[in-house]
Amino acid sequence: MNRPEVEFWFEFASTYSYPSAMRIAEAAAARQVTVRWRPFLLGPIFAGLGWSTSPFLLQQAKGRYMWHDVGRTCARLGLAFHRPAIFPQHTVLAARLALVGADAAWGPAFVRGVFAANFADGADISDRGVLGAALERAGADATSCLEAAGRADIKQGLRDQGAEAERLGIFGAPSFIAAGDLYWGHDRMIEALEHAARSATGRGPP
Amino acid sequence: MNRPEVEFWFEFASTYSYPSAMRIAEAAAARQVTVRWRPFLLGPIFAGLGWSTSPFLLQQAKGRYMWHDVGRTCARLGLAFHRPAIFPQHTVLAARLALVGADAAWGPAFVRGVFAANFADGADISDRGVLGAALERAGADATSCLEAAGRADIKQGLRDQGAEAERLGIFGAPSFIAAGDLYWGHDRMIEALEHAARSATGRGPP
Repeated sequence: MNRPEVEFWFEFASTYSYPSAMRIAEAAAARQVTVRWRPFLLGPIFAGLGWSTSPFLLQQAKGRYMWHDVGRTCARLGLAFHRPAIFPQHTVLAARLALVGADAAWGPAFVRGVFAANFADGADISDRGVLGAALERAGADATSCLEAAGRADIKQGLRDQGAEAERLGIFGAPSFIAAGDLYWGHDRMIEALEHAARSATGRGPP
Repeated sequence: MNRPEVEFWFEFASTYSYPSAMRIAEAAAARQVTVRWRPFLLGPIFAGLGWSTSPFLLQQAKGRYMWHDVGRTCARLGLAFHRPAIFPQHTVLAARLALVGADAAWGPAFVRGVFAANFADGADISDRGVLGAALERAGADATSCLEAAGRADIKQGLRDQGAEAERLGIFGAPSFIAAGDLYWGHDRMIEALEHAARSATGRGPP
């Protein structure tokens, strides 16, 4: 039987995507599940709801809770976390680069590097210098990747990815697709991985 | 040292409050934690955000996901669940009754009975007959409780409860307060109980 797969839909501006991005590779490997890394932008989905920005800014109480909760979640996971001065960040270039690397060996390390730059280091992840450094640290060639990210097919590819997210019923990040089922939120990452593993082996209830 | 306590803030119309209401008593008892049952209404909080109804109706994709996700969550917990025809229900009378019973022996059984009427039996929980039956099954006197629920001090008490929820930073249900910390969502119930237990004994990190 094929190795089970989980699609990991993430947005670089999304606070709860950070712990998932940092931990999904090892959690998936432990369950013999392959991760398919799928960057997308939440902005167009929020705009479709009539929202001009993150719901964490539009709803102040929810925003206050979120910063506290993400902080304690990262502490529990042993992940560095500092509330960034810029929120939400502009992530279109970072997402295009993640799409360039979607099937490359450097892809996951680049994604982790950008998330850490945003939520541990407080860097501006719309900055080409910051992104170039993350590419090089992940083992990619920054110049050619940044050039590729400006190509029409990559720009269109990211728009297509967003349209696919909407078709899949995705409305927030992180989201996971496991054996056709949608799971929303970092809290559901393990459940999604276990659902994928179980569905592939045919063991136990769905 | 005092026995640790968790405040359980719930709304009878809230889908994710249902699994918490049905499972919190045993989960808390297993950790030597006392539950303080705190009914409140989400309507005024949502109205303060400019919303006329549940976000699950305002955001269709999120609503579709929620019904699927609550169903599989209940299945995992062995809880009956049927998507109710009425959503969200009018819960002001039920919440006033829960406040009448907040410190009574029949209180928790009444709360569970109303949640089951809503999410397992598809009953109209704004109906006095449905609520009266739930009171009787919980061991309360329906006539005197329904009379008490109409008293000015109970009506004001529920409004005060809502104001306190907002002061505590509560923006959704279920919510839990454990050792001064807010936890939102059924997914965080166990974490809240364990935080309360740990804080009381002084064992381990917060």
